Amino acid sequence: MDEFSIIDKYFTGIGFQHPSVVVGSGDDCAVLKQHTDFELCTSTDTLISGVHFPVDCSGAIVAHRSLVANLSDLCAMGASPVSFLLSLTMPEAINSWLSCFADRLSELSKLHQIMLVGGNIAKGPLAVTITVLGTVPRGAALLRSSAKVDEAIFVTGELGMAAAGLKVVEEQLNTHNLLKSAYFYPSPQVEFAESLIGRASACIDISDGFLADLSHLCEDSGIGAEIETSDIFLSDSLCAYAGSEALDFALYGGDDYELCFSVPACFVDDIRKLALIKKTRISQVGSTIAKKGISLIKDGQKIAADVKGYTHF
Amino acid sequence: MDEFSIIDKYFTGIGFQHPSVVVGSGDDCAVLKQHTDFELCTSTDTLISGVHFPVDCSGAIVAHRSLVANLSDLCAMGASPVSFLLSLTMPEAINSWLSCFADRLSELSKLHQIMLVGGNIAKGPLAVTITVLGTVPRGAALLRSSAKVDEAIFVTGELGMAAAGLKVVEEQLNTHNLLKSAYFYPSPQVEFAESLIGRASACIDISDGFLADLSHLCEDSGIGAEIETSDIFLSDSLCAYAGSEALDFALYGGDDYELCFSVPACFVDDIRKLALIKKTRISQVGSTIAKKGISLIKDGQKIAADVKGYTHF
Repeated sequence: MDEFSIIDKYFTGIGFQHPSVVVGSGDDCAVLKQHTDFELCTSTDTLISGVHFPVDCSGAIVAHRSLVANLSDLCAMGASPVSFLLSLTMPEAINSWLSCFADRLSELSKLHQIMLVGGNIAKGPLAVTITVLGTVPRGAALLRSSAKVDEAIFVTGELGMAAAGLKVVEEQLNTHNLLKSAYFYPSPQVEFAESLIGRASACIDISDGFLADLSHLCEDSGIGAEIETSDIFLSDSLCAYAGSEALDFALYGGDDYELCFSVPACFVDDIRKLALIKKTRISQVGSTIAKKGISLIKDGQKIAADVKGYTHF
Repeated sequence: MDEFSIIDKYFTGIGFQHPSVVVGSGDDCAVLKQHTDFELCTSTDTLISGVHFPVDCSGAIVAHRSLVANLSDLCAMGASPVSFLLSLTMPEAINSWLSCFADRLSELSKLHQIMLVGGNIAKGPLAVTITVLGTVPRGAALLRSSAKVDEAIFVTGELGMAAAGLKVVEEQLNTHNLLKSAYFYPSPQVEFAESLIGRASACIDISDGFLADLSHLCEDSGIGAEIETSDIFLSDSLCAYAGSEALDFALYGGDDYELCFSVPACFVDDIRKLALIKKTRISQVGSTIAKKGISLIKDGQKIAADVKGYTHF
């Protein structure tokens, strides 16, 4: 099967069709409408077999994690998804795997209203690179660098679940399905993220670990943060698996694809209401402070924080 | 060295800075201005070590070929380059290789005024995925599907040089440097492509081979083509290396990153003048015809054409 046959069979016309797309897949480039009142947000991320997901993952898991990792970057800017490009390299074309991959991609595309507008397929080690495009109202993108002192720091979701899930997978346990599911099928905060526009002053996605990513936000904003560890929500599933290490999973574990954002006092109630309406769990876990660095408070005591996160080399 | 140190050391702030970029590298997404009068063109392409370039290639060659392969897709739409995202995976971080890669990327970025606005670096088999973004006036993108019957078919450049160059490399010859250079350091038709807007009716980039890509243009436009092989320019370098096979390299060889476009009679003189002004070699190699398929004429006789091109699997 050549590249074009694979594209025709599995990818042509699948998923959501976005009204901003003038020309989708099949030409040298996709062509998209622009509007002066909006800005374009774009990001790319590669997931490699054996590095970013276990080597024996189903096509559905690979498709899911690849697209969500990228969607989460759009969320971190408050951007609305528009389209994505897919670059898939694989050692051989296995019909069942491709079918499973394309089906999941199509489902997620419809769910998050993001249209597949191009890409390429080549022979090589299994890896997926997705590039996402989205839009925000002009000047409204949520940057990492714009947090101010004395703002509330929030996180979405249940931290540490994905990292614990990966460990469960590596230990080949047949239990802790909620944790495994959090790792294999993360949910990006697409809808809630859009409602942060105009309310949050800075935002980052948590994929390298909560503290590592919070430290990026603080550094880029030239401020620090004080985190009250007892305010970090630890799910029953995480506690049942990790016991006394649950907090460490939440602080340091990667792959969560949740958002960490800072909110001026005047918008805190508003944000809480929006989270209720959107049925999104958010937790206020601390505040921004003038002193640089991250202070962790546990049982009234400051504890040391390791903010390195995941390193590739 | 972690991902962030590599990015800081080699990639932060390099190359051209584009005025349309509001936020470049360093946040979850890049942010770009939009304008209602323009449309966005985007494409992505992956180059894999051992598949798309020899395993022992220098960083400069890998950077060059990766960016040009993508720039050429923008050219094929008549789009002006704006920005690109880089996803680089490599088994280890070798300073000399990275330095060479980043320097070449920076040079090309300045030459073609395309700004590096983000990406990621991960551990894995050596591969480069670049996504390019460019703009065209609204409604003016040069599609593959809009060629009409009785138009002149042109190609830019010297076909077959890159494919012959690859063969020279594979044969480990120390001669035929122009051919090797055509393979390692292709030149995209950025400036000339922009002047095709409003004049050419359809355009495609030739990277899978001239006949293979011409057949895509014809199929998508629902027409055919008649090609006079004696009108295809064969360079002295190609003839010196390939002898009687020179035409086959020109017809079937990949990696040329030249353009094939169709032009209505009323714009043919105009296009020729523009090519002179831009110092771009163009050759009128045939015409579009109503009968589907591609007819090759050699010495007044029709010869068979193989239009399959490169297949990955």
